[in-house]
Amino acid sequence: MSPVTNGQVIFNEAPAPGPLVPGKSGMIYKEDSIDIDTVALDGGFLVKVLYLSIDPVILGRLGGPPGWGYVAGKPILNYGLGRVLRSEHASFKAGDLVYGLMNFEEYTVYPVAQAGQFSVVDNSIPLVAWLGPVGLAGESAYYGWKEHVPSTVKGKVCFVSSGAGGVGSMVIQLAKRDGMKVIASAGSEEKVAIMKQLGADVAFNYKTTATKDILAKEGPIDVYWDNVGGETLEAAIDAAAPFAHFIECGMVSGYDGQAYGIKNLFLTIPKSIQIHGFVVVYLASKWGAEFRETIPKLIASGEIKYNIEVVKGLEKAEEVFIGQLSGKVTGKPVIQVGAE
Amino acid sequence: MSPVTNGQVIFNEAPAPGPLVPGKSGMIYKEDSIDIDTVALDGGFLVKVLYLSIDPVILGRLGGPPGWGYVAGKPILNYGLGRVLRSEHASFKAGDLVYGLMNFEEYTVYPVAQAGQFSVVDNSIPLVAWLGPVGLAGESAYYGWKEHVPSTVKGKVCFVSSGAGGVGSMVIQLAKRDGMKVIASAGSEEKVAIMKQLGADVAFNYKTTATKDILAKEGPIDVYWDNVGGETLEAAIDAAAPFAHFIECGMVSGYDGQAYGIKNLFLTIPKSIQIHGFVVVYLASKWGAEFRETIPKLIASGEIKYNIEVVKGLEKAEEVFIGQLSGKVTGKPVIQVGAE
Repeated sequence: MSPVTNGQVIFNEAPAPGPLVPGKSGMIYKEDSIDIDTVALDGGFLVKVLYLSIDPVILGRLGGPPGWGYVAGKPILNYGLGRVLRSEHASFKAGDLVYGLMNFEEYTVYPVAQAGQFSVVDNSIPLVAWLGPVGLAGESAYYGWKEHVPSTVKGKVCFVSSGAGGVGSMVIQLAKRDGMKVIASAGSEEKVAIMKQLGADVAFNYKTTATKDILAKEGPIDVYWDNVGGETLEAAIDAAAPFAHFIECGMVSGYDGQAYGIKNLFLTIPKSIQIHGFVVVYLASKWGAEFRETIPKLIASGEIKYNIEVVKGLEKAEEVFIGQLSGKVTGKPVIQVGAE
Repeated sequence: MSPVTNGQVIFNEAPAPGPLVPGKSGMIYKEDSIDIDTVALDGGFLVKVLYLSIDPVILGRLGGPPGWGYVAGKPILNYGLGRVLRSEHASFKAGDLVYGLMNFEEYTVYPVAQAGQFSVVDNSIPLVAWLGPVGLAGESAYYGWKEHVPSTVKGKVCFVSSGAGGVGSMVIQLAKRDGMKVIASAGSEEKVAIMKQLGADVAFNYKTTATKDILAKEGPIDVYWDNVGGETLEAAIDAAAPFAHFIECGMVSGYDGQAYGIKNLFLTIPKSIQIHGFVVVYLASKWGAEFRETIPKLIASGEIKYNIEVVKGLEKAEEVFIGQLSGKVTGKPVIQVGAE
């Protein structure tokens, strides 16, 4: 068979500080070619990518340090789901569905050295769910929740920002499962409706209702799951109950470099507030097995819901990523690269 | 015997925001009189105050809410050491040395209802030590350290601000006892010398050497014991090692109401920083017994040192308190009210 087109999203250079500009985001779509029947595997395996996850963590790697940041001229890397087309590796066979860190390209041959970053998954749940509630977003919510929300605050009041996103939507449901009253914020009426469907007791649009007013009325809060930072974090500190726990998962509000200065951190002392920054990968060894045992079943049974927004075409990756950071994407975004 | 003078420091009204101004600090010295031989005890006991502790916590109570704030027209209240002159209470007898929350006045009759706030102490250590390394300052350091510094970071690098103060000087020694490299900052050369005597490996004057430069050279830091907040806290976040623990004990830098906005809190996420606000009284039930068993012996043997600055005369309380907040007092300040 003759070569086919192999679309790719390549990292060229770190974007300038400030809001990402299309064409200058650091990621460029281009097309290469590959002969999927004859390309040498050298002991590895060839994957056809079906779905790729778009997550805020990509931003950090676009401007990240050597070793963590992306490599100029190479494809962007993030979690994806694909099908093995050919394999010379014992752990994978043609037809397997694999999940793991994948290049942003339609077809990739992974060498033996990278085999460890993949796992074979099944179709017991919709395939896109592997990239949302069972993927990085779901892991972030689950690991952070299990590690940093103690029994002393369960059953009380939880506030979640970006509650309609991949992480936030899982946090709402974990909090409800722990018997908490859940207050959730997001930036559109459509997102407010989603948060209510997910079980939030109080859902509001922070663009039309002041966060501090809602928290003054519905708080004080015992847990704040922070996906945004900035003024929302400051309002949460003001509204915190004594011995509150803050889980710092993301600060997307400052992604454009306009970091907001938090002026009320002194309240952490009289209120005995505990603030927990965390990185999902460092908690995987502790909570991963329990997560994989628990969450897929709850997804399959419908007990845990999710809201994934599938956009077709790898060439849309940049647009969707910028949309996610600026709040224009409603659900957890996933790029459909190839047909299932 | 005829009445004697009974000097008092009375709370009149909450001070205006901003640096405290002498005469408008909220505390006023005045003189009453008392007949110590005949004043009615009504089942309580009469205490002659020997020493009163001056601590930053007084500021919060000068402007505090009802129940926590001081009561207008009544004396300022803080930890003190006194001698029982007369008693009708079974727990105390004439001659006993008592430690506890005391009125800022020379003589006070405490009713039965307040007896629980006092304990009888001995003279196995210098009496002023009960108000420093064995008092609120020592308790703050010990309880906060035991509760919030896990074994994962012991033996690594600790940074302490206000390292020559009552709390900071104990923290330096606790960190050294846990095998840590200690970096300590304060605002004068005299304080730098004290911090070195206490065992700090690196001691510097933040007024003449930039904190960020020292931390860049001597860090990264695994523990930050924060007594000041503000720009120092921001520099510590920049210099934090992954999985660092920050213990928020005080933010005296913002005491004048000019709160500094912390702009780099997003670093708590990639660095997995844990920030622990705490209030000493809430940790007393957990760590108090161990503290009372351990620290007085280490004071008596000289294994733990302290630096108390004794100022004679209750009328000096306001001046010493303002001096403490503005960094003009070198050691942990104590007012000597009466002769031992």
